[in-house]
Amino acid sequence: MKIITFLSDFGTKDGYVSQMKGVALEITDARLVDITHDIAPHNILEGAFTLRSTAPYFPTGTVHVAVVDPGVGTERRGILITTSKHILIGPDNGLLMPTAHLLGDFIVYDISNEKYMLNPISTTFHGRDIFTPVAAHITNDVPFEKIGNRIDDFVDLDFGQGEIRENAATGKVIYIDRFGNAITNITGDVLSNGLTYNKNIMVFIGEKCIELPFVKSYGFVKKREMLATIGSSNFLEIGINQGNAAKKLSIKEEDKVEILFA
Amino acid sequence: MKIITFLSDFGTKDGYVSQMKGVALEITDARLVDITHDIAPHNILEGAFTLRSTAPYFPTGTVHVAVVDPGVGTERRGILITTSKHILIGPDNGLLMPTAHLLGDFIVYDISNEKYMLNPISTTFHGRDIFTPVAAHITNDVPFEKIGNRIDDFVDLDFGQGEIRENAATGKVIYIDRFGNAITNITGDVLSNGLTYNKNIMVFIGEKCIELPFVKSYGFVKKREMLATIGSSNFLEIGINQGNAAKKLSIKEEDKVEILFA
Amino acid sequence: MKIITFLSDFGTKDGYVSQMKGVALEITDARLVDITHDIAPHNILEGAFTLRSTAPYFPTGTVHVAVVDPGVGTERRGILITTSKHILIGPDNGLLMPTAHLLGDFIVYDISNEKYMLNPISTTFHGRDIFTPVAAHITNDVPFEKIGNRIDDFVDLDFGQGEIRENAATGKVIYIDRFGNAITNITGDVLSNGLTYNKNIMVFIGEKCIELPFVKSYGFVKKREMLATIGSSNFLEIGINQGNAAKKLSIKEEDKVEILFA
Repeated sequence: MKIITFLSDFGTKDGYVSQMKGVALEITDARLVDITHDIAPHNILEGAFTLRSTAPYFPTGTVHVAVVDPGVGTERRGILITTSKHILIGPDNGLLMPTAHLLGDFIVYDISNEKYMLNPISTTFHGRDIFTPVAAHITNDVPFEKIGNRIDDFVDLDFGQGEIRENAATGKVIYIDRFGNAITNITGDVLSNGLTYNKNIMVFIGEKCIELPFVKSYGFVKKREMLATIGSSNFLEIGINQGNAAKKLSIKEEDKVEILFA
Repeated sequence: MKIITFLSDFGTKDGYVSQMKGVALEITDARLVDITHDIAPHNILEGAFTLRSTAPYFPTGTVHVAVVDPGVGTERRGILITTSKHILIGPDNGLLMPTAHLLGDFIVYDISNEKYMLNPISTTFHGRDIFTPVAAHITNDVPFEKIGNRIDDFVDLDFGQGEIRENAATGKVIYIDRFGNAITNITGDVLSNGLTYNKNIMVFIGEKCIELPFVKSYGFVKKREMLATIGSSNFLEIGINQGNAAKKLSIKEEDKVEILFA
Repeated sequence: MKIITFLSDFGTKDGYVSQMKGVALEITDARLVDITHDIAPHNILEGAFTLRSTAPYFPTGTVHVAVVDPGVGTERRGILITTSKHILIGPDNGLLMPTAHLLGDFIVYDISNEKYMLNPISTTFHGRDIFTPVAAHITNDVPFEKIGNRIDDFVDLDFGQGEIRENAATGKVIYIDRFGNAITNITGDVLSNGLTYNKNIMVFIGEKCIELPFVKSYGFVKKREMLATIGSSNFLEIGINQGNAAKKLSIKEEDKVEILFA
């Protein structure tokens, strides 16, 4: 099965996303699946986190088009990344990189062959005019080498990784989801470093210090109570059962987080 | 044609919904159709109403995955319900039940066979790890009996039904839609009990009492004028032509409604 | 490949959109693609602009269902429009017309044959009960003539077209997108009338007068700086790089715009 996914900060109010789909369907009969188009405008980090959380769940061979692209129309390049499982296509601004690193060995190509782009190419919408037609042609088995040249000087990006010490871990908030859960870059590895379920931990986050139960999931605390857990992306997260922790604690992306567990 | 629909309170900002789709497409080539993901977080009643309004329009054999699941990760079970036309899959918290009752005779199975789930199963996201893969396997003709055992002690839920008397009806608001129309649980049966179009009726709703025209549709009153009508789900609803009745009258879900028609 | 697109002001919170999809899938195996459902409620002009910007990107033979329909349930007709490339279906209130004009010669049919509608037909939701089933039957090669009669007295609509003079152009704002970019009805033809990139221009918009650089794309000015450019739909637009121009300048749809370029 041929699949193209789309991730962007275009929102769904305008026709931009469906213009991309129309362009794709002129070229390919692949399945078109939205990851999300509600990335905060121009927030490359948020787009990168969402792509990294989601892309691995798709079947081998899926082509992911991701467009959070404040530099569109300038000299920034478009890139195509191949991994053993997926193909990633988007701007060369770091957006694709955390996913590429997660998926293992990868090769990066500069997108330069105009044969696989729309004609004319607008200066404001490369998602439609370059990335989508390239993705569609890839699902039709156009070889990667025809798209452009291999490059090594791509723009890299990572979320950093939380540091786990004896009875403590430090990191930062990398994402706040729709429920107001604050997802950190402290991985589930803390579980094999002394953190155990159903005990209280101390959490320093932003300017605040709070004591929280660390539990297996949200349902293990009462409604409106705060908790820490290992979320579905295998990162430590701070939330409120049926409430909004980010609002209540004024947590923002990039806030530092430290947890202490005895 | 194989079809899986998805309904949830996950929103579309995060990658959660598309993680489910990726998981589905690993297993099945079914069509994937979103019902909505904008159910108010944890609002089982709202999810149940929307599923009930929508599922019946899909072709026979459609599998509906619905996830509004505040109890995820606790002991609450997952269930699969078969009816003569559709299959419903989701948490055992009442969410699926109004639809099951509407569709006629049904059988409920406990979802317990881990063979048809993802491995590992997170404690926070059964939509992705349990309900979606089960749905995908069902579209591949896995027999219901292989998913789990038949049960009778599921959690039931209904919206109540408005009471229709001579020249009057009482009920409550069960849903407020995007336009601010307040949909009640008084059914279109009032039409055969004396309510007639193009006459005024008295409506008591929340704390307010208002006189309104009862008309065939919104376009029968002037812009910004209030009205009552039988909506597209065959329930009495109160609205404003090109305006927001719920805001103007401060109507909330669960508000009592009484109508008098001479 | 059979394709049906959907555009509406229904939002995605309720089940309305997916009710249409369920109805379509009962009749056809066409691809179903959303253009958008976030048109401002009852805003025909906004729906018309978005359809016109998007429909042309789809393959020949695509059927577009568009529903922004404040007059539903009254005497306003439903229409089907054929062009050399696409088929348009929706209410006879102007919504489809800018797209029809853009696509060249067209024929308009009154939708009147109940054989191709749902039964019963609600008075509030013709998108589901009339327009979608008609579209689905059209993808199954039902001849246009079977849907209804040709008519010439349809409701027309256009955005007006900006006027280009020597060193100046006047027009109005016809659309504000999710990023807060204000799109005018002054076309890219100004480029062949003396407007050149990388020079400043004077812009009168609403009550304000500002001097702005005219550039090839957003990335050519610094973050948070204002600019004018020719956008991806080939209209002049006023925006802020990574900011919201409509908010900052209090721009509304229909605001007059005048630009002076020396």
